[in-house]
Amino acid sequence: MPDRWICFDVNGTLLDPGTLARAWGEDAGRAHPLIFAALQEAVFAAGVDAMTGELRPLPELLGATLARRARLAGLDPACAEQAVALAREMDAYPDAAPALDALADAGFRLAAVTNSTAEAVTAALGHAGLLDRLAEVVGIDEVGRPKPHPDVYAHALRRLGAEAEETWFVAGHWWDVTGAKRAGLRTAWVAREERELLSCAPPPDVSASDLRVAAADIQAAG
Amino acid sequence: MPDRWICFDVNGTLLDPGTLARAWGEDAGRAHPLIFAALQEAVFAAGVDAMTGELRPLPELLGATLARRARLAGLDPACAEQAVALAREMDAYPDAAPALDALADAGFRLAAVTNSTAEAVTAALGHAGLLDRLAEVVGIDEVGRPKPHPDVYAHALRRLGAEAEETWFVAGHWWDVTGAKRAGLRTAWVAREERELLSCAPPPDVSASDLRVAAADIQAAG
Repeated sequence: MPDRWICFDVNGTLLDPGTLARAWGEDAGRAHPLIFAALQEAVFAAGVDAMTGELRPLPELLGATLARRARLAGLDPACAEQAVALAREMDAYPDAAPALDALADAGFRLAAVTNSTAEAVTAALGHAGLLDRLAEVVGIDEVGRPKPHPDVYAHALRRLGAEAEETWFVAGHWWDVTGAKRAGLRTAWVAREERELLSCAPPPDVSASDLRVAAADIQAAG
Repeated sequence: MPDRWICFDVNGTLLDPGTLARAWGEDAGRAHPLIFAALQEAVFAAGVDAMTGELRPLPELLGATLARRARLAGLDPACAEQAVALAREMDAYPDAAPALDALADAGFRLAAVTNSTAEAVTAALGHAGLLDRLAEVVGIDEVGRPKPHPDVYAHALRRLGAEAEETWFVAGHWWDVTGAKRAGLRTAWVAREERELLSCAPPPDVSASDLRVAAADIQAAG
């Protein structure tokens, strides 16, 4: 039997972008909810770029969306730059390592597929102690378009030598499982910060409260 | 001299999506801020669709994003459907009619270019008392892709018989003035609900606190 792969989004799925709020020091608690809205808007901005023939690094876009939201919330926008730097020091979500270990024990091969560069996310996964659990890291710099563009999922499948319908994609973002589903992969959505799945997204094969539950449901689905 | 055109985005530029909050009755005040976040996410969802080869009506996407945000805020998600229906009864922003009149008096021809269908936005502009001020209404149904895709701005220019570099595009959304700018048009951003322009957007030719100021600045720019 050929290898069966499970691909994981990184930012907001394996690693906690809430870590970036620490850049605001004693205002971290107020900054925390801004991070997730800013991250989604940065992905939107990457999509606007893709649609209009541009390609800029995600950190540049995230710096701009974080600064704007900080300014509107009365927080120091200058801390956005430091927040982006903290992306290399994100904490792993506590359920990430046990879920990866359970899936590896079940015989799956595991990969990261990210809208960051391979270099940046390799550093972040190493810092978080997850890198050794992943056989491959696929970065956006290899494709030149961001998720949810179908080229990214197709590139990842080629890199892994995997078949779409035999491969799982796991993410905490509706737009990522939407892109993966439309590229023919099986999908698992983890509630994370989104908490409620958007009803206009194509239903994922698995919807789970955290990665451990997702790992169990993926194994049960076979 | 050929006609000089000014194109206006409609939802959030000429017409106030805050009107949709009335669907939540006595909870309208709590629903109001959700509308703008849901509207931007619906545009993001339209972009995800465009990127992945789908096309669905904006009201369908907006219904889903409104329902999800209502649920998370502890508001009745069933009111989202009624909110979408209220899109045909949006109030004009108070600065819209005077700004359109000032620009018409200055010799510009005026058009609406929207991600809604021409039929839906014609009804909404009529209800709001702005339709007679606009010479053309260009809907997304004529293009099959949403703004900020360059096809939409190119289609509008063809429909109007206008030259990109002689035509203005006015919107309250950074992603719309970004698309228009990259399609070669001159752009005016109105602060509206965004309040602060995203720094990674290409700088618009005019940034204004409201449409009257934008109209004056457009005339001054020539």
